Amino acid sequence: MRVIVINTGTELLLGDVLNTHLTFIARQIFPLGLRVDRQLTVPDGPAIPEALAEAFSRAEIVFVTGGLGPTTDDVTREAAAELLGLSLRQNTAVAEAITNRLRDRGFPMTDRILRQADVPNGAVVLANANGTAPGLYIAAGERNGARTPHLFLLPGPPRELQPMFDQSVMPILRTMVQARPGIEARTFHLACVGESVVEAEVGAQLLALPDVELGYCARSGEVDVRILGPRPTLDEAERIIRKAFPLLLYATADENLEEVVVRMLKERSVSLATAESCTGGYLAHRLTNVPGASAVFLAGYVTYANESKASALGVEPQLIEQHGAVSEEVAGAMAMGAVRTAKANFALATTGIAGPDGGSDEKPVGTVFIAWASAAGETKVLRRRFQTDRQSFKHLASQTALELLREQLLAADDAAVSSPSAS
Amino acid sequence: MRVIVINTGTELLLGDVLNTHLTFIARQIFPLGLRVDRQLTVPDGPAIPEALAEAFSRAEIVFVTGGLGPTTDDVTREAAAELLGLSLRQNTAVAEAITNRLRDRGFPMTDRILRQADVPNGAVVLANANGTAPGLYIAAGERNGARTPHLFLLPGPPRELQPMFDQSVMPILRTMVQARPGIEARTFHLACVGESVVEAEVGAQLLALPDVELGYCARSGEVDVRILGPRPTLDEAERIIRKAFPLLLYATADENLEEVVVRMLKERSVSLATAESCTGGYLAHRLTNVPGASAVFLAGYVTYANESKASALGVEPQLIEQHGAVSEEVAGAMAMGAVRTAKANFALATTGIAGPDGGSDEKPVGTVFIAWASAAGETKVLRRRFQTDRQSFKHLASQTALELLREQLLAADDAAVSSPSAS
Repeated sequence: MRVIVINTGTELLLGDVLNTHLTFIARQIFPLGLRVDRQLTVPDGPAIPEALAEAFSRAEIVFVTGGLGPTTDDVTREAAAELLGLSLRQNTAVAEAITNRLRDRGFPMTDRILRQADVPNGAVVLANANGTAPGLYIAAGERNGARTPHLFLLPGPPRELQPMFDQSVMPILRTMVQARPGIEARTFHLACVGESVVEAEVGAQLLALPDVELGYCARSGEVDVRILGPRPTLDEAERIIRKAFPLLLYATADENLEEVVVRMLKERSVSLATAESCTGGYLAHRLTNVPGASAVFLAGYVTYANESKASALGVEPQLIEQHGAVSEEVAGAMAMGAVRTAKANFALATTGIAGPDGGSDEKPVGTVFIAWASAAGETKVLRRRFQTDRQSFKHLASQTALELLREQLLAADDAAVSSPSAS
Repeated sequence: MRVIVINTGTELLLGDVLNTHLTFIARQIFPLGLRVDRQLTVPDGPAIPEALAEAFSRAEIVFVTGGLGPTTDDVTREAAAELLGLSLRQNTAVAEAITNRLRDRGFPMTDRILRQADVPNGAVVLANANGTAPGLYIAAGERNGARTPHLFLLPGPPRELQPMFDQSVMPILRTMVQARPGIEARTFHLACVGESVVEAEVGAQLLALPDVELGYCARSGEVDVRILGPRPTLDEAERIIRKAFPLLLYATADENLEEVVVRMLKERSVSLATAESCTGGYLAHRLTNVPGASAVFLAGYVTYANESKASALGVEPQLIEQHGAVSEEVAGAMAMGAVRTAKANFALATTGIAGPDGGSDEKPVGTVFIAWASAAGETKVLRRRFQTDRQSFKHLASQTALELLREQLLAADDAAVSSPSAS
């Protein structure tokens, strides 16, 4: 089935708003074996019916975003109804929901607003939990002897569209693509490795599996391997990937690395502190993005000035003098200082040269030391170099730090299992 | 002049990569009075010539991104040449640049790679400082009696396209739109205010100015007002906006709020520390994103656990017991503690309930206290409520904190000017 996405909205073409709909929809429908064949952005107004008519002859499924609101420029609903020869009628339940929503917020009702309750004859209403205008689904059919596609009209704001897509659109799509029973999707996240390495290591083996479809998604500091196929293929793919990257593989569900780390800390009832120089608070920020992080994350120290490394973390000034603030020794001392000061089980520390200035021959811009320490007095320090812009540098350094912690937690599990005292 | 943007790349349609080209190009060409009328994403391969042919009849300027690389799927260059009836010929200078680039990196040269040096007859080569494939510009003309548009073929990776657009495409565009001499653009950034408030306050006045074009760009915690017109119109617009929002207006150049704040601290030779609870390091992260922030930002404390508020910042445990960790009193004490501990001139502190859990009737989810303190013992605390997701909450709270600091710095300037001892 060919799929077209039409995004409507003058604000998208003016560059005011970044269009995230294509990425979202493409990722949602991928597990169903559906791909977007074409995507189009058109301004509000008369360009919408033209784009719709064009898409009708090119696709079996058409998603339209935006243009369902109350203003004169919002013509998606009317344009679709006219193209399909369907009359519009006010839907009582939708009208009531809109009326209640406005009353709750103390806004006055107008005829324009109530237009959003108009529903083309035979269309399915997709409830909007986060806004006024509902979505609409019109099943494929025929009009004037020509085939018409499955048509989904969806609201423009992502916080309205995304939950609606999950809750209402996906179930309808699933009934359409049931021609592929037994096909499932699985995503494998690999941290701190590049796409080309993953492809070289496992690409050929994965492609040799029966009925497999393979996609890579490379982001800063990680690669997702997305695999579509029957369950035995997915299980075998997982075996291949786990064998090639036993530690780098951090999750097969939709969890990001900071979520995995916070979950692992909670499961083990251990706490964490951070001491950051070059990542400047970004590592703490990522950890505290996870709801419930407060249960395991005690404190973070952003010790940008050398003096604060001493005052907040107790790093000896002589150590900095002798080895430099960007050094294995100082990184380790920072992590140990954070463990001590925050009374945490573990700590992570970063110190490096984010650039654009401050490098030397021995420690060029991009050099970073990443340390882990435990309350038992162990430390481990990695040296890396990330030659990139300042923000990507922070991301890669924090990614390496989180991955180091994950590996240390796994190593501790292994040690506990193999130690007789744990049995 | 009608403008079409064609983005090519299967990875865009698979949702692997977020398409930022439209936003970038739209913002770049806005000051020239150009708007994107239509944007299309198509997969690599045969869809590219079809999309090109379609765009030729619809626009006077066509930008194509991607499809200039060495693989068999990269057909943009060949498709454009064929549509325009232009022969391709290897450009010696480009071939040499590619050869040198590969030799420097130790990669072997192949015929496929050298294809990137092929240039359609009469095309202008746009140098690529960050990649192998150059961009190409083919001026508008005629083919088989039909008009052909100005055609720009640009590389797919943003880090290659964006500098090329600045350095090579914009100068060419400027010669095309010189029909509007004396028209300039100015952008005004307003922090901590909504688009509807800005529009209600100054929208009508701005639209009444001669030869004005007005655009709003709302982001989390700020609004950009973009104005296009002759210089007297821009000056008058600036006067109107400065009068309506004397403090909220933070820059008219391309500086974001953290850059403005770091610059202001440097200009005044004063230092800053942060103490964060609910923003979890995000405030420090934003400040340390600014190159050279280390000159003014001494230290940040992410005191997530109550105990760390005491140990790192010296906040009295009784104060927390009496008023709660999320309170005006604790916010002020955290800021004062950060000033003291880091020996900074000023500090900012945040404490709040990011959610999803942890609210109460008196202090519902989204409540946040934002404090500023000075080494002279002054404090100022704001109470706000941001009902949104966790990350937007952090952004809005940090935005309010930075804006509070900016206002205090401006107020101190005023006080210094009006005080006789400063004269």
